[in-house]
Amino acid sequence: MYQLYHCVSARSFRPLWLLEELQQPYTLHLLPFPPRALQRSYLELNPLGTIPLLLHGQVKLTESAAICEYLAALHPKHKLGVLPHEAGFAAYLNWLHMSDATLTFPQTLVLRYQHFEPPERRHDDVAQDYARWFLARLRAVEATVSTSDWLCAGRFTAADVAVGYALMLADFLGLLPQSGPATQAYWQRLKQRPAFARALQAEQAAARAQGVDSTPSPLLRPFG
Amino acid sequence: MYQLYHCVSARSFRPLWLLEELQQPYTLHLLPFPPRALQRSYLELNPLGTIPLLLHGQVKLTESAAICEYLAALHPKHKLGVLPHEAGFAAYLNWLHMSDATLTFPQTLVLRYQHFEPPERRHDDVAQDYARWFLARLRAVEATVSTSDWLCAGRFTAADVAVGYALMLADFLGLLPQSGPATQAYWQRLKQRPAFARALQAEQAAARAQGVDSTPSPLLRPFG
Repeated sequence: MYQLYHCVSARSFRPLWLLEELQQPYTLHLLPFPPRALQRSYLELNPLGTIPLLLHGQVKLTESAAICEYLAALHPKHKLGVLPHEAGFAAYLNWLHMSDATLTFPQTLVLRYQHFEPPERRHDDVAQDYARWFLARLRAVEATVSTSDWLCAGRFTAADVAVGYALMLADFLGLLPQSGPATQAYWQRLKQRPAFARALQAEQAAARAQGVDSTPSPLLRPFG
Repeated sequence: MYQLYHCVSARSFRPLWLLEELQQPYTLHLLPFPPRALQRSYLELNPLGTIPLLLHGQVKLTESAAICEYLAALHPKHKLGVLPHEAGFAAYLNWLHMSDATLTFPQTLVLRYQHFEPPERRHDDVAQDYARWFLARLRAVEATVSTSDWLCAGRFTAADVAVGYALMLADFLGLLPQSGPATQAYWQRLKQRPAFARALQAEQAAARAQGVDSTPSPLLRPFG
């Protein structure tokens, strides 16, 4: 049984969505954002205070793209992972790593210095530096989904979930209209996955059941 | 045959080091930094202009941690990868992803806003925000290497190479003395790997042979 610790709209949405794709049973623990300030007891489970956290028996994972890779590998019959002997293996790994290191982190700078910091600590130029940086890297997605429905291996994989969350965040930040048309069409395809809708529903149901405010900031409810 | 595109001291050092660990033949192409400004022809190979780039037959990879994972998986007899049935598999994936997304990206903010930008575009507060951010996340390394020589699976793996580069960068930025004693001892162990020394030698030999300035900035020659 998987235990997933998640905040509304945060990158822990990746494992949530993937668990729904894999149709695995899981317990969803919804935390107020940021948990290291608002739910100090969480630090006993994850001393870093970051989300996500996935508990699976004795195993703990904290990196959202790593969790996607882990879950896909543990449930091979769903073919959401790509194996070393398959032609798409290198691309699969590259997209998984790119999804967070290259396509999500720069957007967190936009979020931080344009929205989250108090006015006197905001830096529009830093936010713009990294919005540009993100959009430049996103051209790799545009080049790929111009000629194929999914990123690699000729099928939907965990890499699409991982990169999909970066597009979800870009949509939320208002950056997506500056991406290419193939990227925007790809995001529409991703949102039509039944598991994507189920993950959003699970998030809202958990927020209600656990009494967590699922809209801590207008910025965190792009899909509300 | 592997073709690796690399800049001195950049995160492409990860695959260079791993190729030396695996004792695989490779061609090392050294580029001036930043290549997208100083060697425009590189954009034909990698339109993103980022480094690293690994070419392997028809395969192209651009994410340094993904390349480490790829190379380790393709050469299983060296046991630098961890397989799904092994106890350390989850930790291996988590460290690989953490190495770049969580432990390297924040340091690039320090580099950019404290050193690379012209004085009028520098932001000491942003550099400090991310130096703190990095050091907080580094506590996960401290907790792990306090009780074990290597990060996972009870042996040296590609995850140590990937995280090792983040420590190399921290050493270069002067952040390492603020890390814990186990982390500092771990970095000393990593530097004693014969393959680490061979990678540094290969870098300098390629710079001489290809007429690339291997010291484009005092910041880029921490080990010179």
